Amino acid sequence: MSGNTFGTLFTVTNFGESHGPAIGCVIDGCPPGLPLTAQDIQADLDRRRPGTSRHVTQRQEPDQVEILSGVYEGVTTGTPIGLLIRNTDQRSKDYANIAQSFRPGHADYAYWYKYGVRDPRGGGRSSARLTAPTVAAGAVAKKWLKQKFGTEFRACMTQIGELPIGFESWAHVPHNPFFAPVADVQAFEDYMDALRKSGDSCGARIRVQATGMPVGLGQPLYDRLDADIAYAMMGLNAVKAVEIGAGFGSVAQRGTTHGDSLSPEGFRSNHAGGIVGGISTGQDLEVSIGIKPTSSILSPRESIDVHGHSTEVSTKGRHDPCVGIRAAPIAEALLALVVMDHALRHRAQCGDVQWTVPPIPAAAP
Amino acid sequence: MSGNTFGTLFTVTNFGESHGPAIGCVIDGCPPGLPLTAQDIQADLDRRRPGTSRHVTQRQEPDQVEILSGVYEGVTTGTPIGLLIRNTDQRSKDYANIAQSFRPGHADYAYWYKYGVRDPRGGGRSSARLTAPTVAAGAVAKKWLKQKFGTEFRACMTQIGELPIGFESWAHVPHNPFFAPVADVQAFEDYMDALRKSGDSCGARIRVQATGMPVGLGQPLYDRLDADIAYAMMGLNAVKAVEIGAGFGSVAQRGTTHGDSLSPEGFRSNHAGGIVGGISTGQDLEVSIGIKPTSSILSPRESIDVHGHSTEVSTKGRHDPCVGIRAAPIAEALLALVVMDHALRHRAQCGDVQWTVPPIPAAAP
Amino acid sequence: MSGNTFGTLFTVTNFGESHGPAIGCVIDGCPPGLPLTAQDIQADLDRRRPGTSRHVTQRQEPDQVEILSGVYEGVTTGTPIGLLIRNTDQRSKDYANIAQSFRPGHADYAYWYKYGVRDPRGGGRSSARLTAPTVAAGAVAKKWLKQKFGTEFRACMTQIGELPIGFESWAHVPHNPFFAPVADVQAFEDYMDALRKSGDSCGARIRVQATGMPVGLGQPLYDRLDADIAYAMMGLNAVKAVEIGAGFGSVAQRGTTHGDSLSPEGFRSNHAGGIVGGISTGQDLEVSIGIKPTSSILSPRESIDVHGHSTEVSTKGRHDPCVGIRAAPIAEALLALVVMDHALRHRAQCGDVQWTVPPIPAAAP
Amino acid sequence: MSGNTFGTLFTVTNFGESHGPAIGCVIDGCPPGLPLTAQDIQADLDRRRPGTSRHVTQRQEPDQVEILSGVYEGVTTGTPIGLLIRNTDQRSKDYANIAQSFRPGHADYAYWYKYGVRDPRGGGRSSARLTAPTVAAGAVAKKWLKQKFGTEFRACMTQIGELPIGFESWAHVPHNPFFAPVADVQAFEDYMDALRKSGDSCGARIRVQATGMPVGLGQPLYDRLDADIAYAMMGLNAVKAVEIGAGFGSVAQRGTTHGDSLSPEGFRSNHAGGIVGGISTGQDLEVSIGIKPTSSILSPRESIDVHGHSTEVSTKGRHDPCVGIRAAPIAEALLALVVMDHALRHRAQCGDVQWTVPPIPAAAP
Repeated sequence: MSGNTFGTLFTVTNFGESHGPAIGCVIDGCPPGLPLTAQDIQADLDRRRPGTSRHVTQRQEPDQVEILSGVYEGVTTGTPIGLLIRNTDQRSKDYANIAQSFRPGHADYAYWYKYGVRDPRGGGRSSARLTAPTVAAGAVAKKWLKQKFGTEFRACMTQIGELPIGFESWAHVPHNPFFAPVADVQAFEDYMDALRKSGDSCGARIRVQATGMPVGLGQPLYDRLDADIAYAMMGLNAVKAVEIGAGFGSVAQRGTTHGDSLSPEGFRSNHAGGIVGGISTGQDLEVSIGIKPTSSILSPRESIDVHGHSTEVSTKGRHDPCVGIRAAPIAEALLALVVMDHALRHRAQCGDVQWTVPPIPAAAP
Repeated sequence: MSGNTFGTLFTVTNFGESHGPAIGCVIDGCPPGLPLTAQDIQADLDRRRPGTSRHVTQRQEPDQVEILSGVYEGVTTGTPIGLLIRNTDQRSKDYANIAQSFRPGHADYAYWYKYGVRDPRGGGRSSARLTAPTVAAGAVAKKWLKQKFGTEFRACMTQIGELPIGFESWAHVPHNPFFAPVADVQAFEDYMDALRKSGDSCGARIRVQATGMPVGLGQPLYDRLDADIAYAMMGLNAVKAVEIGAGFGSVAQRGTTHGDSLSPEGFRSNHAGGIVGGISTGQDLEVSIGIKPTSSILSPRESIDVHGHSTEVSTKGRHDPCVGIRAAPIAEALLALVVMDHALRHRAQCGDVQWTVPPIPAAAP
Repeated sequence: MSGNTFGTLFTVTNFGESHGPAIGCVIDGCPPGLPLTAQDIQADLDRRRPGTSRHVTQRQEPDQVEILSGVYEGVTTGTPIGLLIRNTDQRSKDYANIAQSFRPGHADYAYWYKYGVRDPRGGGRSSARLTAPTVAAGAVAKKWLKQKFGTEFRACMTQIGELPIGFESWAHVPHNPFFAPVADVQAFEDYMDALRKSGDSCGARIRVQATGMPVGLGQPLYDRLDADIAYAMMGLNAVKAVEIGAGFGSVAQRGTTHGDSLSPEGFRSNHAGGIVGGISTGQDLEVSIGIKPTSSILSPRESIDVHGHSTEVSTKGRHDPCVGIRAAPIAEALLALVVMDHALRHRAQCGDVQWTVPPIPAAAP
Repeated sequence: MSGNTFGTLFTVTNFGESHGPAIGCVIDGCPPGLPLTAQDIQADLDRRRPGTSRHVTQRQEPDQVEILSGVYEGVTTGTPIGLLIRNTDQRSKDYANIAQSFRPGHADYAYWYKYGVRDPRGGGRSSARLTAPTVAAGAVAKKWLKQKFGTEFRACMTQIGELPIGFESWAHVPHNPFFAPVADVQAFEDYMDALRKSGDSCGARIRVQATGMPVGLGQPLYDRLDADIAYAMMGLNAVKAVEIGAGFGSVAQRGTTHGDSLSPEGFRSNHAGGIVGGISTGQDLEVSIGIKPTSSILSPRESIDVHGHSTEVSTKGRHDPCVGIRAAPIAEALLALVVMDHALRHRAQCGDVQWTVPPIPAAAP
């Protein structure tokens, strides 16, 4: 594969650059007969959209999606779904000064030595803007999985910079700009205001969950469900760490504790995070990701230019001081895409999921 | 893909079960002209081999590899390399009692509901024994990468159970059964002896490194180098967490700290772990993985059988009390396979790596 | 793969329906640094365009291509190239009457039973209109191959209906609507006029050629160059037969005749059509394809509707009476895409083609 | 893909050389629960086996297959099926004289310039011996398809050299060494005897058929069923031409004739060969392939050596004077593999084939 297609049976082929004419994707392999409108997709795009609070980039992009193909009379036909999002708020002049130098922490240096040429405007292809088509495709996967199995996806922030965020309720997540599962986010607002003022940036930790999972998704040995989740999450811009279930915490656990015991009423715990041996158990998928601080910061940094000479770089333009803030809907989409792909792969080899198996309930998450 | 092939251009197709007649793999896409003998591969297999100390499974497997194809007069021909390892020490009777019940923490339950049938002997396909062909394939990748770029791979244990392991020197790693980078491992010996006596198990944390990396490996957006590393590592049996560079630690870092600044003498730090924007920078790859405690333990556990009835399971047979102990050579092999695949992918699109670029030295690791 | 992506390293992911808002494709894996403008692509699209003579469909489509990504300052960047062609001349009302019945020789019946839903307007996804993005992608491949190796592609018609077409010169091909390699095409004009008047259609045979081929393209055993050419050509709408080199004629040849002997001056003949053992020899690729008569004809045909009841179908609308007439530029594009993909695959495994090998000239074609 | 894996969901990864220690394959993606023994596979291998009549190579190979994995207690488990066939009758000395020169019509020249190294013994990787694992894998596909849909595969010879072979009955095919559908094959025996005596070789034409086909197999646009059949067949050693249904004959047909009309009782004809728009109609698949004369002949041929100097080559050793004779079981296997792969792909996207659709009977073949 050439590097811009996600998935094997439910594939998303992504194109575009931050400041080119348009971005978009082609979704291939979608089952026919799924009711689908642009609004189904737009809803998730709006959750990811920039410019919605003072804590994120002030770029104003409506991110209006157009369905170019694959849907006829409001229903998917089984043929590829082309999605197009025009770029409307490019301010390329902001980038003239960094075209010949490498911003620390950015992909500039690696792109330059890989391709010998790069589009410097807004990070070009390495911009987080390219997650929009991923979110759009994820919305299609979510809709099918919800209808087929009742599977649902959600994500929330569990840490911002040095500040851990407790868990009160999923109900709070849609009501604050941090996707935080708590009612009171004043401390985080203050933290972000101070950070922005200092010209610096911070990281974040995100929890992602799938509920209503079918049993048996995942391929043996190499293409395990957990492996593909790790692939998806680590591929998200700025992610540097991924955990499933007990994650790094499992290192210090004993086998007697970690292994989730079973009873006729279901699993007694979910240290596994819903996956053993690479295959889903039907328990909730529990994933946690660590996101590094934004690399585009106002503070001047030591660097070099394309000739190897010393220079100093400070990134102007409009940037998220914490890219993790908008990561929740993207991480949800990625998890949905992985589950969708494995649902189709399972069906190919083993036939439709059989709900005649004893529906052992999952442990309370 | 059907789930048992690793890689896209340098592919490893793995087959076999723990207690079947044989295990092995087919390596496809290997460049022609590489000198290769069975001994090149055997050396790494021997490092992974069971039965080498009292801290690992007592199964006695010589793991003798036979090259079936792809090598002529000691040189690879560019055609597929078939590798075969016969199973010789199967004691299937140990597993009769668990054929109808699900061992907590094991893949039994998920396999059963996925396939409706499973080979229960020694975990069948989900056995860690299936990492042997991975290690064998990794040896081929390592040899080519070393010859071509000077790239080398190594791994060491950094935590066992609750005990952190400091870093003294890579030189200690080959000289103790823990792959620990320290001279004195008495504390870990004692810890493992007590653990084994208690019929329990523990996890481990492993650091994996590649040095002498070429710049520019990795594909944009989806098939990033870091994503593929996460995929490879999370797919290793018992792994529940993966970090690259600063990993989860980067969440609490500021952008001014995390972004590795550049100077004409090279990068000033390596928080990125050798990858930005999904593409290698030429710095060392730094990866860390968290491994859960072994699920096969003597202590009896609550479970159910295939009819959903309560039962109790305690796993007899020969098992590693800490599967992480033998994980170092496997993790090395997986990292080598990922780098190899990306080296060929890079070459396909961009041509051979050009060493005319200014060889900016990496920061000291 | 999900069915709408062509190639493995130089991939073309196609989307769109005949009467939807737009058609297009995403080209992934294109080497960076290739000068590319919309005009480079438009030239080939114009050769395939409908409405250019009275012998082809009267649909008026400018087929104006827009490059959405992957090109910066006139040069490819190595990131995916998104191409968009808006549909402008849809007359969907022509298709209302056939939405519930199956046109003989068309994909209607198979689509209906595969997907349970179909877009009947203009054949929807199965329309030959979807070859436009293929031609666009082929133009990019052609440009790179010409620049890199001097490889060039051309095609001409060698039979129309019952009428064989002799070979005079490639120079005549661009100067008549039949892509015929002869100066005088009056007989074919008359033949087509009579055919159109009778409300019937006919087939065609096309010869496709690549010159300036590198030696060594093709993968062993399964992914041979000839196999991939056959795949590409048989996948073109209405194609029912493919030959390479001597083709079916080789059945009655003797081994002493067929096997192309070699001399220090080059091959003595080219019965192989430029490929032995699935790998290119450096001789010209010679391919011939057979195209069935157009299925959309005015003459009424016996058929059934979606309820299995008898009905009669006659296809109104604007159709090519011989789809083979416009097939030449499409077949060229497909051959270029196959060669391009294999050029990159070869480079991945074996490194850049080495022109230090004795350049044995091909036999005169 | 790296060139030695066939299929996308039901994959066959082939390894081995004619005169290496062993050949074999790994079948991945096989549905679980299929009863399977080595004897199921051996039966088809025996039909393809050399040394069964004086008209084929005298190499004596039992081609005994060993199942290494993927089957437990006589039933497939859904994990990869490893198959091994040891080479037992290698006479490598026959090939010493051709190691440094290129046999006309053979892959020698192309392999040499592709890889820079080759295993000359028995054609190495390019030997027709490598079709044995393909046949073995095909046997597994056949068994599943027969059990699932009642689909069956058969092939017969329709022309040998200049001699056309009429069609009397499929019942004759197993009873003569030519796989000919006629009772009296004396003329062909005489023809072959004379040919062998003259030190020359000839080609053959083979018809391949699938009956009991499900409707709806095939992917739109690029991965059509017909395209994949063409790929499979053209990839078979020595094949130079492929037709589906009316094939090249359709060029001279009119649309009123070619398009198979439908009635409530089924299709009226099968010019399409069971596929329209790349998707199966449920009619019989009808495929025809043209096979070139064997390149390994006793008659001396003009050639060059690896240094480009003139030489003369005559191939000693044991060779089929008409490789087409043993092609029938191989072509069957390839067709089965394609149908199997598409059956799984269809199921992935659209769910299990629904037999509630009106089962329109196919026209009599």
